[in-house]
Amino acid sequence: MNSDKLLLDGTRVAHQIQQDLAIRVSQLAAKGIQPCLVTILVGDDPSSETYVRMKGNACRRLGIQSRRIHLAQTTTTEELIAVIHEMNQDSYVHGILLQHPVPPQIDERAAFEAISIHKDVDGVTMLGFAQNAFGEASFPSCTPAAILAILDDYQIPIEGKHAVVIGRSPILGKPVSLMLLNRNATVTICHSRTVGLDHIVGLADILVAAVGKPAFVQGSWIKEGAVVIDAGYNSGNIGDVDYEACLTKSSAITPVPGGVGPVTIAMLLKHTVDAAEKVGQ
Amino acid sequence: MNSDKLLLDGTRVAHQIQQDLAIRVSQLAAKGIQPCLVTILVGDDPSSETYVRMKGNACRRLGIQSRRIHLAQTTTTEELIAVIHEMNQDSYVHGILLQHPVPPQIDERAAFEAISIHKDVDGVTMLGFAQNAFGEASFPSCTPAAILAILDDYQIPIEGKHAVVIGRSPILGKPVSLMLLNRNATVTICHSRTVGLDHIVGLADILVAAVGKPAFVQGSWIKEGAVVIDAGYNSGNIGDVDYEACLTKSSAITPVPGGVGPVTIAMLLKHTVDAAEKVGQ
Repeated sequence: MNSDKLLLDGTRVAHQIQQDLAIRVSQLAAKGIQPCLVTILVGDDPSSETYVRMKGNACRRLGIQSRRIHLAQTTTTEELIAVIHEMNQDSYVHGILLQHPVPPQIDERAAFEAISIHKDVDGVTMLGFAQNAFGEASFPSCTPAAILAILDDYQIPIEGKHAVVIGRSPILGKPVSLMLLNRNATVTICHSRTVGLDHIVGLADILVAAVGKPAFVQGSWIKEGAVVIDAGYNSGNIGDVDYEACLTKSSAITPVPGGVGPVTIAMLLKHTVDAAEKVGQ
Repeated sequence: MNSDKLLLDGTRVAHQIQQDLAIRVSQLAAKGIQPCLVTILVGDDPSSETYVRMKGNACRRLGIQSRRIHLAQTTTTEELIAVIHEMNQDSYVHGILLQHPVPPQIDERAAFEAISIHKDVDGVTMLGFAQNAFGEASFPSCTPAAILAILDDYQIPIEGKHAVVIGRSPILGKPVSLMLLNRNATVTICHSRTVGLDHIVGLADILVAAVGKPAFVQGSWIKEGAVVIDAGYNSGNIGDVDYEACLTKSSAITPVPGGVGPVTIAMLLKHTVDAAEKVGQ
């Protein structure tokens, strides 16, 4: 491996963020405030249970209270929204995370929209999306925020660079594209209907893969020296990027696991502490 | 001029939209409903006065009621918001347009946000922006909607095409980029900090110029056969595109005037009628 190649170590970045947060959590404790994140899980999807448990554990390690609400698979939209409203009203709760996907009978958008903007630490509401698009969100979606945090930690320039994002989901592809745009990158957004994807990926100074297909991005597609951010997570610990093949051509690359994932969780914790500090002011 | 080149005639497209609207306005009249658009102008900017007058005239020609509120240059944010709230409450009012820019002492964003989503026919609220980004807006911003209407009227394919947008404003560059993305274009968003703009413009199957600089886009930049949409309007009836130079290379192009401008006004009228029909249901 080329010695000047950067392995973008998300575990280290996350650890550093959490060290800063630990100080802020203890300062809040001195004021009698404990940040509290509520995670709401509907149904029995094993992956979702794992994610919720990981987030809860990360909270507890940092002294953030983690309240877990587990609702039945048969929960209705109205029942879910009633629980969210209760959490909006609860002054001990600073952040609300609704784990998705939710069961098919639930109107997920309606449930997301029920979350108070002040507690939307996962950046899922429409208002939060728009604030982020206009560069003024308190809580951008956690994965996009994590991607920016990694680039910034490694002082990778964004302004004037051509960023190519593969994926256009409301919580990843679209918001990260707009965040990179607001940081003065030229941004191209690709997706499943893109024609000539390999050629367009080859234009990228910064590539963000958020497509949800294991090892999808080929080493032959990317430009020599590109920065490769793999925001995918597929079963078997496989990202959206053919890591070994892209490693040889990139100037910097995130691994999976240990790249974007841990920083995403750190961002969720950070937003929860941010929310608690705002209330404490 | 090449005979198979398309001159994208916005005046014709606008006229056709307005003919359809006239039928809908008369159907509403039969129910005792007259669509009503309120335009709010703050201060004495001559261009803004012209725009507001043009919009008012277009309403009246179609049988849409046009109420004009003209506030003093010294109006405060609170005073403006109080007027907007009053219009939100007024059941005879279906659409509210706050002409921008507003004087510098006014918090424009706060004023926009005061407009009820149900009356935001100009698509300026954050919620409207997000709904549009997610492909479910009742009232997308009028100029982006006009651009899509022109492309659709001329049956210009969008899916799988590479669209390049120059400009990233909240009411034009960003929303039109997201609308083209939602129609399955691959979208590149450029701006003042873009490096190698000429090269990137040369990738465009569909180019949208929304940069606010007269005759900025050069003929030498564009790809042979590109579709060129000039969303600029600069003093002296000059668009953002060097029209004569781009005409020779494009397969289709909007003129200025007579391109995007008249369709933008038609979209404002359409949204007002849409809003009145929703109330009438």
